[in-house]
Amino acid sequence: MRLSKSFLKTLREAPKDETAVNGALLIRAGYIHKEMAGVYDFLPLGLRVVENIKNIIRDELNKIGCEEILMATLQNPEPWEKTGRFSDQEVDIWFKTELASGGILGLAPTHEEPVTNLMKSYISSYKDLPLYVYQFQNKFRNELRAKSGILRGREFLMKDLYSFHTSQEDLDRFYHEVELAYGRIFERMGVGDSTYETFASGGIFSKYSHEFQTFLPVGEDTIYYNQDKSIVLNKEVYNPEVLNDLNATDEKFEETTGAEVGNIFKLKFKYTEPLELKYIDESNQQKTVYMGCYGIGVSRLMGVIVEKFADEKGLVWPETVAPFKYYLIGIGENGISEAEKFYTGREDTVLFDDRDKRPGEKFADSELMGIPLRVVVSDKTLADNEAEITDRKTGKSWRVSLDELFEKF
Amino acid sequence: MRLSKSFLKTLREAPKDETAVNGALLIRAGYIHKEMAGVYDFLPLGLRVVENIKNIIRDELNKIGCEEILMATLQNPEPWEKTGRFSDQEVDIWFKTELASGGILGLAPTHEEPVTNLMKSYISSYKDLPLYVYQFQNKFRNELRAKSGILRGREFLMKDLYSFHTSQEDLDRFYHEVELAYGRIFERMGVGDSTYETFASGGIFSKYSHEFQTFLPVGEDTIYYNQDKSIVLNKEVYNPEVLNDLNATDEKFEETTGAEVGNIFKLKFKYTEPLELKYIDESNQQKTVYMGCYGIGVSRLMGVIVEKFADEKGLVWPETVAPFKYYLIGIGENGISEAEKFYTGREDTVLFDDRDKRPGEKFADSELMGIPLRVVVSDKTLADNEAEITDRKTGKSWRVSLDELFEKF
Repeated sequence: MRLSKSFLKTLREAPKDETAVNGALLIRAGYIHKEMAGVYDFLPLGLRVVENIKNIIRDELNKIGCEEILMATLQNPEPWEKTGRFSDQEVDIWFKTELASGGILGLAPTHEEPVTNLMKSYISSYKDLPLYVYQFQNKFRNELRAKSGILRGREFLMKDLYSFHTSQEDLDRFYHEVELAYGRIFERMGVGDSTYETFASGGIFSKYSHEFQTFLPVGEDTIYYNQDKSIVLNKEVYNPEVLNDLNATDEKFEETTGAEVGNIFKLKFKYTEPLELKYIDESNQQKTVYMGCYGIGVSRLMGVIVEKFADEKGLVWPETVAPFKYYLIGIGENGISEAEKFYTGREDTVLFDDRDKRPGEKFADSELMGIPLRVVVSDKTLADNEAEITDRKTGKSWRVSLDELFEKF
Repeated sequence: MRLSKSFLKTLREAPKDETAVNGALLIRAGYIHKEMAGVYDFLPLGLRVVENIKNIIRDELNKIGCEEILMATLQNPEPWEKTGRFSDQEVDIWFKTELASGGILGLAPTHEEPVTNLMKSYISSYKDLPLYVYQFQNKFRNELRAKSGILRGREFLMKDLYSFHTSQEDLDRFYHEVELAYGRIFERMGVGDSTYETFASGGIFSKYSHEFQTFLPVGEDTIYYNQDKSIVLNKEVYNPEVLNDLNATDEKFEETTGAEVGNIFKLKFKYTEPLELKYIDESNQQKTVYMGCYGIGVSRLMGVIVEKFADEKGLVWPETVAPFKYYLIGIGENGISEAEKFYTGREDTVLFDDRDKRPGEKFADSELMGIPLRVVVSDKTLADNEAEITDRKTGKSWRVSLDELFEKF
């Protein structure tokens, strides 16, 4: 992408009410725009990051046999009334709206009820099971406060996966496959070594659920972990009974904060029973379907990555989610012409700063935008038939020959 | 994709309240699921069609320099109050909702106000113009009646493009570029020869706008056209004054119905003036930005394509938007093994019906699902070292040698 052909530019200031580091930096670097607290627009660079995150998740979920769908935002109360969750007492973050032709609708804060209902058209026999469907869809949650940038949105992008099974064993088997897939997903996004599977409270049918918590100073959850971090617990289950369950009564636990980037639940019959999602088994008996659900906060994850890696100069993206791999600057007539040559055919991986601006401004923008590698071709580097590469994360610069640049980059 | 590994199946019946042909067929063929009137979920095949339509539009818009963004659904009333459009008297299809922390929000029925507001952060000088941004985003419209399947949704996917300029001439120039791009888009989707640019009413700043109408018996608009279809008018501007403007007072016009798949507007200052989107020109004068907007109903277009081509056996997709190119069936042991060979490496273009079902059922499903070419490999065709190809649209079948199948398909 040529910056001269884009409307994007870095901004000197973020809005005064944007107190979160992730929100302020992403706004200043031109990735997002704030509509109101907890509601953001994604600009071209931000949208590329979101798509990169989605593609990593999609790839790992498709590998374990999941199928992508897209459910609606507007919610008919009917299935939610059957599970008791349309009530504002039960779910206190509903946005609701009135239908002109009469009746109340909700804006989906999650999709267990509609997906269970949808599956009544597709599941009737044990031959239809197991099955796994997921979507990337905006969720709407009427949060009283939303001051954490894109870490907590009133409208935010989530990946939600739902699985359906004939037995507890099969649910357990797939749940474990998702645990492994989530590990690969967070690893590929560069937060693998700071993201831990964490015990959290379960529900009616399961003593525990699991969260994936990225350790982060601005994280909203309080987390306890033992010395080798083999046991990590959300504060809500950090009590003697649970420690006993885990044979960890003698261990010393430390407290920290985390941001929940994913969660997985064995729902069992929680939704399939009230919504009567049944199947006929091999011996012609009608049985209730077992169900699991598995979320990843896509836009939150983007915010977590920002908070994790940003430094005093701006954003720092891991290469796998960065909107572009290279930030290209040509200085001087020959430098610009050589940069043009490098850009040609690499339009999708190179952000070419071909604007009529001073090199210093371009350097500062490349740092604020956080593109992994800066490539500078100037009359000075060309005198040695070379280009200069700078790693955004380490700040280290080195020279490569033009041959190497064109062959290996 | 292997049908045996998918939850998809064709359904015997659509819901009784689904009276539109497009809705009923898409539900029966497993492309969509109905949540309520005007609100649908997209299942794997339907989502693939939507993505194919988006990719064609994206490709043509990127070619003319447009940049993709993604704006929010939740709308702060402020900018809408400045243009007078937050009022339910002015815009009678708003869905509104209450913020827990106080205040009313709207669900975006369109995005002129927020995009104009957003551009205040990015446009200050003539050097920032022209610029063009678009998004694919769900729109929400509180329709009293929604009985046309995905032709008229309460929640539906739209592509909306907005352009910003320093002069009427530059707005005119880009408007014409979009007209040409729209022509290419509808052509690529197979509705080019039945879609006409149509005069429609303008607004404050422009006598006419243009719609793109696909002639269609179930279309909701009444359209008038002259003999060579060089002049096509929406009923709302079919009057002596307009005919006089177009030097068409002597021509004979016929009436038909159309579905509006796109519309383009020269908005000029309609939104930029009340929202004070200004720029500084070359002589340091502050001026108001010229604006245009350009929509395509993505999910509606999918419904139009269904209505246009479907026959008594089911859906018929043009190859460019079809979820898969081939529907593959192997019959008999050798047929199945040869089909497996053909499938390998073609997972993204072949829908492989490897289910344990009778050939007759598979043939019927391949027709209902509307995949362009059916490939059958059976012991019978293998006796001649051949496969049988059937064109869904014409119903014609022919034989190809296995060599040709593996090389050319």
